[in-house]
Amino acid sequence: MFNKNTYITRRKILKQKVGSGIILLAGNVQSSMNYKDNWYAFRQDSSFLYFSGLDIPDLMLIIDIDNDVDILFGNDATIDDIVWQGVLPTVSELASNAGILQSKSLNALSGYLKNKKNQPVHFLPPYRPEHYDQLSDLLQLSPREVDAGVSVSLIKAIVSLRSIKSEAEISEIEKAVNTSNQMQLAAMSFARAGQTEAEIAGQLQSIAIAGGGNLSFPIILTTRGETLHIHYTNNIIERGKMVLCDCGAETAMHYPGDLTRTFPVDKSFTQIQRDVYEIVLNAQQSAAEALEPGELFLNVHLLACEKLVDGLKELGLMKGDSKEAVANNAHTLFFQCGLGHMMGLDIHDMENLGEQYVGYSDTLKKSKEFGLKSLRLGRSLEPGFVLTVEPGLYFIPALMDLWKSDKRNASFINYDKLGHFRNFGGIRIEEDFVITVNGARLLGDPIAKTVKDVEALRM
Amino acid sequence: MFNKNTYITRRKILKQKVGSGIILLAGNVQSSMNYKDNWYAFRQDSSFLYFSGLDIPDLMLIIDIDNDVDILFGNDATIDDIVWQGVLPTVSELASNAGILQSKSLNALSGYLKNKKNQPVHFLPPYRPEHYDQLSDLLQLSPREVDAGVSVSLIKAIVSLRSIKSEAEISEIEKAVNTSNQMQLAAMSFARAGQTEAEIAGQLQSIAIAGGGNLSFPIILTTRGETLHIHYTNNIIERGKMVLCDCGAETAMHYPGDLTRTFPVDKSFTQIQRDVYEIVLNAQQSAAEALEPGELFLNVHLLACEKLVDGLKELGLMKGDSKEAVANNAHTLFFQCGLGHMMGLDIHDMENLGEQYVGYSDTLKKSKEFGLKSLRLGRSLEPGFVLTVEPGLYFIPALMDLWKSDKRNASFINYDKLGHFRNFGGIRIEEDFVITVNGARLLGDPIAKTVKDVEALRM
Repeated sequence: MFNKNTYITRRKILKQKVGSGIILLAGNVQSSMNYKDNWYAFRQDSSFLYFSGLDIPDLMLIIDIDNDVDILFGNDATIDDIVWQGVLPTVSELASNAGILQSKSLNALSGYLKNKKNQPVHFLPPYRPEHYDQLSDLLQLSPREVDAGVSVSLIKAIVSLRSIKSEAEISEIEKAVNTSNQMQLAAMSFARAGQTEAEIAGQLQSIAIAGGGNLSFPIILTTRGETLHIHYTNNIIERGKMVLCDCGAETAMHYPGDLTRTFPVDKSFTQIQRDVYEIVLNAQQSAAEALEPGELFLNVHLLACEKLVDGLKELGLMKGDSKEAVANNAHTLFFQCGLGHMMGLDIHDMENLGEQYVGYSDTLKKSKEFGLKSLRLGRSLEPGFVLTVEPGLYFIPALMDLWKSDKRNASFINYDKLGHFRNFGGIRIEEDFVITVNGARLLGDPIAKTVKDVEALRM
Repeated sequence: MFNKNTYITRRKILKQKVGSGIILLAGNVQSSMNYKDNWYAFRQDSSFLYFSGLDIPDLMLIIDIDNDVDILFGNDATIDDIVWQGVLPTVSELASNAGILQSKSLNALSGYLKNKKNQPVHFLPPYRPEHYDQLSDLLQLSPREVDAGVSVSLIKAIVSLRSIKSEAEISEIEKAVNTSNQMQLAAMSFARAGQTEAEIAGQLQSIAIAGGGNLSFPIILTTRGETLHIHYTNNIIERGKMVLCDCGAETAMHYPGDLTRTFPVDKSFTQIQRDVYEIVLNAQQSAAEALEPGELFLNVHLLACEKLVDGLKELGLMKGDSKEAVANNAHTLFFQCGLGHMMGLDIHDMENLGEQYVGYSDTLKKSKEFGLKSLRLGRSLEPGFVLTVEPGLYFIPALMDLWKSDKRNASFINYDKLGHFRNFGGIRIEEDFVITVNGARLLGDPIAKTVKDVEALRM
C-alpha cells in the first residue's frame, strides 16, 4: 500500500466533496467456487482499496463526515484462523496502517448504524449478491430499496477523485504496463503453429505472477479474434491464421496494464492480413494523436471509426462518405464496440459505479445504439485520466449474415465482397495512455506495433 | 464431457435412489469480481456437472422422477452474445449432448414449478449467496426455509453415486495427478534461493494450464509451511529454509490432482529437517499401506497420528504412551488437521453436500474436537473411493505459546524442547490413492518422495 497519508488525504477530500452524513464503504468478502471454503482469489472492492489500502476480506469502513471520524470494523484472528492462515495483523493495526484512528469489531457495526438514525448513510451500488445481503441487514432495506438508496453524491465524489491518477498511481500503472509488455513480447516471440492457445496463455500468466501480482483480467488469446471477449481454449494454433492476444498484468497493489497485439502464426502477414492490419494501425495512431485535455473521447472514437471506414473503402468493403457511414453506424458491422475505457484499480475503471457517471456527464448521455452503447468513455478528457485506445476490425459471420439478409446500410457496404472475409477473424491493437497538460503520453516502453516490427519478432 | 450415455445412466440411477418427486439441480452463474461484468473463471456446480456434463453458466436441470422426464432450462444466445462470446450451442443442442430429451427457456422454470405444486422438490444445500436468491424465487421460500428444506434423500443419493469413481473418472484423475507430478518435479528441480515464492508458483500454474485445464485449487507454495492454508507471496526464498509445495492441476473436465512435497532450499536437508521429514514420511507410508476396503479412514488417521507421536518421542518433543497421547489429542499441537479427504469433481469432494454425509455415516458422527473436527473423512472405505493421504508436522509459534502457557497435555509434551523448533516451519507429504477390491493403488506415476530422491532433484 501507499503511505498512510495518501489514504488520510483521500478520505479528507472525500468528506469535503460529499459534505454531510455517514459514508459506508463495504470491503469485499471471499467468493466461493464449488463449495463454501474453496475460494476464488480474493478481490477487494476497488473504492474500499482506494480509501484504505487494506487488501483483506471482511472489513467495513465508516467515514462519519458530520463528526469527522473514521472507523474500521473487522474481527481479529482466532487461534483457528492463525493455524490455517498464519498470523494476521489485528484490526487496530490495520486501521493504524491506513491512518484510521478508531477500530471496532464487525458485529458492532449494525448497532453503530442504529444509533446514527438521524444521519443519512451514503453507500455505493451493489455488484455482488452478498452486497445486497449486507446492506439489507445493516440498513433494514429491501433489495429494491438498496438499489433506490444508492448515493449519487458519493458516486460522483469518488468518480471525481479516482478519475485523476496521481504520479504514484501512474508509476504503478506503468510498472504493470511494462510487465504486460513482457507478456506481449513473449506471445509474439514464442507462439508457434501446433501449440494450443492455452499453452501460450499459461506462459503469459506466469510472467504476470512473477511480476508480483497476477493477471489484470482473464487472457484473451485466440485465433478467433473476431469474437470480442473469447478466452483461450485448447484449440491448436494453425498456420495461415492470426493470433489476437489481449492481456495484462496487475501489480500487487492491483494497478493494471491492458494491451493487445495481433500477429500472424506464420513468419509474416499475408497480403490481406497486412492490409487490414494497416487500417487498424492507422486508426489506432490517429486516435492516440488526437488525445488531449478538453477533447471529447466520443470524438476520438468517431475519428477512429472514420479512419476504419476510409480503409475499408480502399479495400472495397465499404463505400460512400465516411462521416455519413459512421453517422449511420454502418462501420459497426466491422467495429462493434468502443475505442477504449478508463483504467485504474479496475481494468474498466469504476464500472461498478455506473458508466454514465464514469464515462459521460450531466450534459453528455451514453447512447443506446449498437456500437456506441459499448463505448464506455465519451466525456471530455482531463490531465491525469488513464485510458486505453483499442480500435479493431472484426469479421463476425453471424452478424454479416444478419445484416446482409436485412440489407442493412446497403448504401455503405459492398455485401458481395464480404464472402472473402468470412473466415478472416479479427484484428485489434491496444495501448494505454495518460492524459497530460498538453496531450497524452504512452504508458510503458513502446513495443513492436508496425507490421515490420511485429514480423521481426516472428523470425 | 463423457459420452451422453454416462449422464443418462447416472440420472436413471439417481431417480431410482431418490424414489419420487422432482429433482432441481441448479447450474452455477458467473461470479463477479470488482464489477458485474468482470468475472472470475466460471466454475460449474459439481453435481450439475456430474449429471449433465454441461460446463456452461445459467442452466437449470429438472429431473421429474414421477413422470420420468428430464428437462434442461436455459436461454439461447442473442446476436449480442455472439458478438462478445462467439457462436454457442443452443439449449436444445446442449440438452441433446447430455441425453436430455426436453429443453425450455430459463424463464419458463418458475411457471413449470408452480404447476407441479403437488410434487415435492428435492434441492441441494446452497453455498453461494445467489443460490439462496434462485431457490427463494423459484420455490417462494425464505432463506431460512431454503436451509430447512434441503433434501437429505437427494444428498445421500448423490453421495452414494459420486463416492464410487468409475474407471473413466479414475483415468481422468490419473491424468490430472500426472500433470500435478510435473508441477511438483518442476518446483523441486528449479526452485532456488533468491526467487520469490510467486515466481515459482507462476511456473507451476503454466504447467497446469498447458495440461488442458488449470489449477485444481490455489497453490500453496511457501517457506512458512507451518501455516496450513497459506498461499504463495512475494517473499524471497531463503537458504536454510524448506519449501512446502501443495498444488495440483485439474483436467478440462475438472477432475483434479492434489499433491504435496516439502524440500530444502539448499541442496540437502539439515539433520533436523531430515529427522522431521523421516517421521512424516513414515506416517505417510504407514497410512498408505493401511488403506483397504472395510477399514475406517478414522483408524488410518489415528494410525498416522501414532506414527507421528512415535517419531516425536524419538526426537524428544513428546513422551508417554503414543496411543494415549493420541487419545488425548496431544499430537494436535503438531498435526492440527486431518489425514486426508475424498477427491473427485471437487478437490474436497462434495464438501458442499455436508461433511457428515460425505465423510461419515449414520453410525459414525464427525467429532467436534480440535484436530478431529478437521478430519473430513472417517467412514469405512469402499472400492472406487479416491482420497488423499497427507500427514504433516507443523510448528506454529502462536499455538505452542498458547498450549505452553496452559500447560496443556504436559504429560505428553516436553515443552522445554520446543524452543529449537520455533522457526522450523512445517512438513507435509501428500499422495492420491484409489481404493481397490483388496487394497489401494497410488494414482499417477510415483515421483521423488524419500530424502535421497528429493535431494537428487536439488543437485
